[in-house]
Amino acid sequence: MALIVQKFGGSSVANRDRIFNVARIVANTHNAGNDVVVVVSAQGDTTDDLIAKAQEITHDPSGREMDMLLCAGEQISIALLCMALGELGCKAISLLGWQAGFITDSSHQKARIRKVDTERLEAELGKNQVVVVAGFQGICRADDLTTLGRGGSDTSAVAIAAAMKADLCQIYTDVEGVYTADPRIVKKAKKLSEIAFDEMLELASLGAQVLNNRSVELAKKYNVKLEVLSSLNPVPGTIVKEVANMEGMMIKGVAKDTNVSSIAVLGVHDQPGIAFKVFSLLAQRKINVDLILQSVGRDGTKDITFTVASTDRRQAVEILTESIGRFGAKKVEYDDDVAKVSVVGAGIQSNANVASTMFEALYESNINIRMISTSEIKISVLIEKKDADKAVNAIHEAFLG
Amino acid sequence: MALIVQKFGGSSVANRDRIFNVARIVANTHNAGNDVVVVVSAQGDTTDDLIAKAQEITHDPSGREMDMLLCAGEQISIALLCMALGELGCKAISLLGWQAGFITDSSHQKARIRKVDTERLEAELGKNQVVVVAGFQGICRADDLTTLGRGGSDTSAVAIAAAMKADLCQIYTDVEGVYTADPRIVKKAKKLSEIAFDEMLELASLGAQVLNNRSVELAKKYNVKLEVLSSLNPVPGTIVKEVANMEGMMIKGVAKDTNVSSIAVLGVHDQPGIAFKVFSLLAQRKINVDLILQSVGRDGTKDITFTVASTDRRQAVEILTESIGRFGAKKVEYDDDVAKVSVVGAGIQSNANVASTMFEALYESNINIRMISTSEIKISVLIEKKDADKAVNAIHEAFLG
Repeated sequence: MALIVQKFGGSSVANRDRIFNVARIVANTHNAGNDVVVVVSAQGDTTDDLIAKAQEITHDPSGREMDMLLCAGEQISIALLCMALGELGCKAISLLGWQAGFITDSSHQKARIRKVDTERLEAELGKNQVVVVAGFQGICRADDLTTLGRGGSDTSAVAIAAAMKADLCQIYTDVEGVYTADPRIVKKAKKLSEIAFDEMLELASLGAQVLNNRSVELAKKYNVKLEVLSSLNPVPGTIVKEVANMEGMMIKGVAKDTNVSSIAVLGVHDQPGIAFKVFSLLAQRKINVDLILQSVGRDGTKDITFTVASTDRRQAVEILTESIGRFGAKKVEYDDDVAKVSVVGAGIQSNANVASTMFEALYESNINIRMISTSEIKISVLIEKKDADKAVNAIHEAFLG
Repeated sequence: MALIVQKFGGSSVANRDRIFNVARIVANTHNAGNDVVVVVSAQGDTTDDLIAKAQEITHDPSGREMDMLLCAGEQISIALLCMALGELGCKAISLLGWQAGFITDSSHQKARIRKVDTERLEAELGKNQVVVVAGFQGICRADDLTTLGRGGSDTSAVAIAAAMKADLCQIYTDVEGVYTADPRIVKKAKKLSEIAFDEMLELASLGAQVLNNRSVELAKKYNVKLEVLSSLNPVPGTIVKEVANMEGMMIKGVAKDTNVSSIAVLGVHDQPGIAFKVFSLLAQRKINVDLILQSVGRDGTKDITFTVASTDRRQAVEILTESIGRFGAKKVEYDDDVAKVSVVGAGIQSNANVASTMFEALYESNINIRMISTSEIKISVLIEKKDADKAVNAIHEAFLG
C-alpha cells in the first residue's frame, strides 16, 4: 500500500462530467489499496470570474480581501468532488487549506508555506477515506486566509507529499506529460518517460508551462517523486525525479519563451561596478534579469544588453531612464519582438557538439542569433520573435528528429 | 457612540451597484461615530446556484459537504463589501463565521449556535474599522464548517448583537418595515413604527416573511432591539422590541399563509389517547401540527382534522396511512387548497370584539371558515385557498381600514 497525492487543475474539475472523471481516477487509486490525498484547484474560470468581480469594485483591492475572495473557489470544488466520490461509493472528506494544516507567512497573494501540520490529514486518512484538500490556500498566524500565488495548487500538492513522505505525487493536467517540445509547434515532439528535477526547472522557466517552477523546486528539495500525466487519457505520464534515466537521449527538450524583452543601456562609462549598479537597481524592484551581454564600444564606453520578462519591461526601462545620469549612459533602448529558444539536458555544457549542432541548425534556417547564454544543463539563444517556431522546429529536428 | 449591527440580505449585495449602496449606508453609520459590525448573506442567487451544482452531482449530498460548499457564498460577499468600503475610504476587515467566533453544534445544514466568542470581533473593532462578518455560518468543535439553515444570516446578526450587547441590530431588507398586511395584497396596508417580539413571532410564523422566526426568538431572549428597514429607501423602519408602544391600534397585522394543508383522519375509535397516538407519530418525524379540530361522528367514532405545512403533507399522509389500523381509522384524507389567515395583536384574546369583527368580515365576504384557532395574541382561520387574498383585505378593512 502506497500513499499517493493526486493534484487536479481547474479544467479537470470544470463541470459535472469532468468532476466525475476525476472522482473515478481517485476512486480507482483508492480501491487499488492506496491511501490517497487529492488536491484540487478552483473550477474552470472561477478564479478569473472572482477577480473580475473584484475589479468591478476596485483596481486596488487589499491583498487580504483578495485572498478571502479567491479562497472560495477551491472551497467549492473540494465539496463537489467529495459529493461525486460519495456517489461512486468512495468515502471522502474535504479539507480547506487551514484545515489541512497549511501554515504560511502573511504575504497575501504570494504567501510562502512555513509548514504543513499533518495531524488532521493523517487522522482523516486513518478513517479509510480519501482526503480532498483545497489547493492554493493556507492560513497565516493571525488566522487570516492566504493564497500561494499562480500555480499554487501544484505547490500545495508537493508540500503535502513532502510533509507526509508520499510515495508519489501525481500532477494531472490536460497534456499527457512533458514533451521534447510543445506538440502544438513541433509535430514530431516526443513524450519523455523521465526527466530530472533540474532539467524540468529549466524547461519550466523557459516557458514549457507544464509544471509550476516553485513546485518543482520544492519537489527537488524534499526529493518528492513527481508524475505529470493526463486526467483525460489514462496512459503513463512523465516521471520527474532526482536523476533521470541516464541512457537514452541527452537532450530532454527544446523550449521557447516569448514573454521576454531585451533592454540595452548604451554608452555607459567603462569603469568597474557599472554593471552592478544597473542590475542592483532592477533587483531592488524585484525585476529578474536573464541573458546578459556586455560589449565594449569604440569610444571607451560600454553597452549593456540584457533580457527581462516582457511584463517587467516598462518598469525596467522607466527606472533605468530616470537613473541614466548615474551610469553616464547615453540612451536606454528596448525591443519586445524577441524570443528565447533553449535546449535542455543534463551534461550539455560538457559536450561541445550540442552548441555547434544548435547554432548550425539556426544558421541553416537563416535565423540570426542576438545573444547566447549557457548553463550546465541548457543553452539559450535570443532571436527575433517571428523566427521562434521555426527555430524550435529546426533545433528539435537536429537533436531529436 | 453606539454599537450597531447591520445585516444585509442577498438581494442587497447582488451586484456591484448594490454593494456600493450597502457600503455607503455602512460608511455613513461609521462616519457618524458608531462602531459598526455588518453581517451579509451570499450574493443574489449564489446559494441557489451552489445548490444546483450539488444537485447535478448527487441528490443526497452529505450535510458536511453541503456546508463546505455553501459557506463559499458569504465568503465572496464579505470580501467584495470590504473592497467597496475601502474604495469609499472606510477601513474595513472581513471575517468568516469561524473567525468571528461562531461556535455551533455539529448539526450540518441547521446548526445551533453554542456561543459567539467575541474576542477577535472586539479586537478588530478596536482598530477603528468596520467589521464585516459572513452570516449563516459557523464552525463546530471538530473544526468543520456549519451553516445555520434558512434565514441564518438574520440569526447571525442578532447573535452578534446579543453577544456584544449592541445598542441596535438593523435588519435591512427590500421592504421598508413590517406592515399591517402584505402591501402587494392590501393597498391600504400601513407600516408599523413598532411591534412587540411576540407579535412579530406570530406574524413571521404566519407567513409574513419579513424576519426569520429564530432570529426574533433570539432577539427576544437576549432583549436585542431590532429594526427592520429598507436598504434602498432611507426612511425609518419598524422597531421590534420587548413591549411595543401600547397606544395606538391593538391589531398589528393581518397575515396569510398558503404553505398549509389540512389532513383528516376519519372514523377513529372514540377512546382516550387516540389523538395523542396520531400526533406523537408525526412528532417523531419532526412534523409540526398547527390548527386541530376534533369532532365526534354519528357512529361513536371521531374525526381528527389538523393542518401541517404543505411541504410535510405527503410524508404525514404516508405515515398515517401506514398506521391506520393502530387507531382503527377508516380513512385519511387531505386538502392542499387551503390557506390560513390570521390577525395578530397583543391582548386579542381578552377582547371578544376581535373574533366577532373578524368572523363578520369573512361572513360579509361570503367566505366559509373551516377551522378556528386562537392564542393570546392571534386568531387564525382556515379557509379555501382561492379566498385568501379577499379574506386578508376584508379583515384588514374591518380593523385597520
